[in-house]
Amino acid sequence: MILDNTEITSLEKIYRANLINSLGGFKSLVLIGTKSNRDKENIAPFSSFFHLGADPALCGIIVKPCEPKQNTLGNIIGRRQYTINHVLPVFYKQAHQCSAKYEEGTSEFKEVNLTPQYIEGITAPFVLESKVKFACEFVQKIDIELNGTFLIIGKIVKIIVPDHVVSTDGFVNLEMAGTVTCSGLDSYHTTRQLARLSYAKITEPIQEL
Amino acid sequence: MILDNTEITSLEKIYRANLINSLGGFKSLVLIGTKSNRDKENIAPFSSFFHLGADPALCGIIVKPCEPKQNTLGNIIGRRQYTINHVLPVFYKQAHQCSAKYEEGTSEFKEVNLTPQYIEGITAPFVLESKVKFACEFVQKIDIELNGTFLIIGKIVKIIVPDHVVSTDGFVNLEMAGTVTCSGLDSYHTTRQLARLSYAKITEPIQEL
Repeated sequence: MILDNTEITSLEKIYRANLINSLGGFKSLVLIGTKSNRDKENIAPFSSFFHLGADPALCGIIVKPCEPKQNTLGNIIGRRQYTINHVLPVFYKQAHQCSAKYEEGTSEFKEVNLTPQYIEGITAPFVLESKVKFACEFVQKIDIELNGTFLIIGKIVKIIVPDHVVSTDGFVNLEMAGTVTCSGLDSYHTTRQLARLSYAKITEPIQEL
Repeated sequence: MILDNTEITSLEKIYRANLINSLGGFKSLVLIGTKSNRDKENIAPFSSFFHLGADPALCGIIVKPCEPKQNTLGNIIGRRQYTINHVLPVFYKQAHQCSAKYEEGTSEFKEVNLTPQYIEGITAPFVLESKVKFACEFVQKIDIELNGTFLIIGKIVKIIVPDHVVSTDGFVNLEMAGTVTCSGLDSYHTTRQLARLSYAKITEPIQEL
C-alpha cells in the first residue's frame, strides 16, 4: 500500500487516526498522575512521552487542548508536579480504562481500582501498582500552533525503581520490570530483548545483512 | 532505589545517561533518511519520534545541536524532506551502527550495507530493507532553549506499508511487520501483543486488579 499526500488527506477519519497513530512504531505507555487545586486525584494514560535530555533530566509529553473533563494539563499547570508511572501486564486494561471521559472530579484510581501512593516531597499521586515511576516538576509549556496541541516539558525530580532491575551502569531493564509498550491507539505489547549493543564505533563496512 | 533531585543531579554522567534514557519506557526506533544539498545520502537512528496529530498527519523528532559530522538536522532543513523507516530484527545491528560518527559525506548506507530506495515525489532516500516507512515534509523547527535541542515537526506526505499488516480500520500490525522497539540507549526488543482494547467508555468501577 502506497499513499500520497492527497490520499492521506482524504482518508476516512477513524481509518486515518488508526493508521497515522500506528506509523511511528512502538510507544512509551505511562499513566500520568496529577492532583487538582481542589485536591482531586487524576490518572490518565499517555503514549506521547519522550526523552529530552539526561543533564538536566528533562522529558516531554504532548497534550491535546484542554477539555473540561480531561484534567491532566490543568492539574500540571496548577500544581506544577506530576508523576509518570509505567504500566504492567496485570493492569494494562485498567490503564486503558482511565482514558474514558469520566466527570470532572471523579478519581480514575477508584473507578479502575488502582491505588494512589504518596512519596515525600511530591504532591501528585503515584500509582502504587507501578514498579518504575518518577515525578516531574513542570518547567515549560510550548504551544504547537499547527494543530493546537501543547508540549509540556518536565524536570525529573524523584525516581523510584526496583533495585534488581537497575544495572551497574544505570540501565534499567524494563523488560525485567514488566513494562508494557503500546502501538496505534489501542494495542498493548510485552517485549523480548534482542540484545544491548555496545557504543557504535567506526569500523570496516559491514558486508552482509 | 529512590533518588531525589539532589541525588539525580550528582549521578555519574554515563550512569545518569543510561538511567534517564531508560525511564520513559519503550521507544520508537526509526532510521531517518536524508540527503544533503550536495546529494550525499545519510541515515541515522532516532528513538525520539512521536506522534503529534492525525489530521493533519504530523509527527515530531528531537534533534541535538548540529555537530559537523551529524547531518540529519542540516539535511532536513536544507532539503525539507526526510524519510522515517522502521527497523527489523534482521538489520537492527546495522541500524545501531549508523550512530557511529562517520566523516561528513560518508554514506551510512554503504558503511552498514543497507540499500537506498527512491520513490516518486520524494527526494530523500528510504531504506529498502524496511517494510513500514513514510516520508515527511519539514514544517517547523522549535528551539528548546532549556537544553539546546530542537523539536522538528514534519507532515507525513507519503506512506508505504505492506498490505497484509494493515487492518480494515487502518491499524497497522507492527508486530506482524516485525518492527523493533528500543529502550535506554542501546537495548533492542521485539514484541508480543497482549491485546487491542476497544474504545474506553464509562462503566461500573472495576473491582479486581
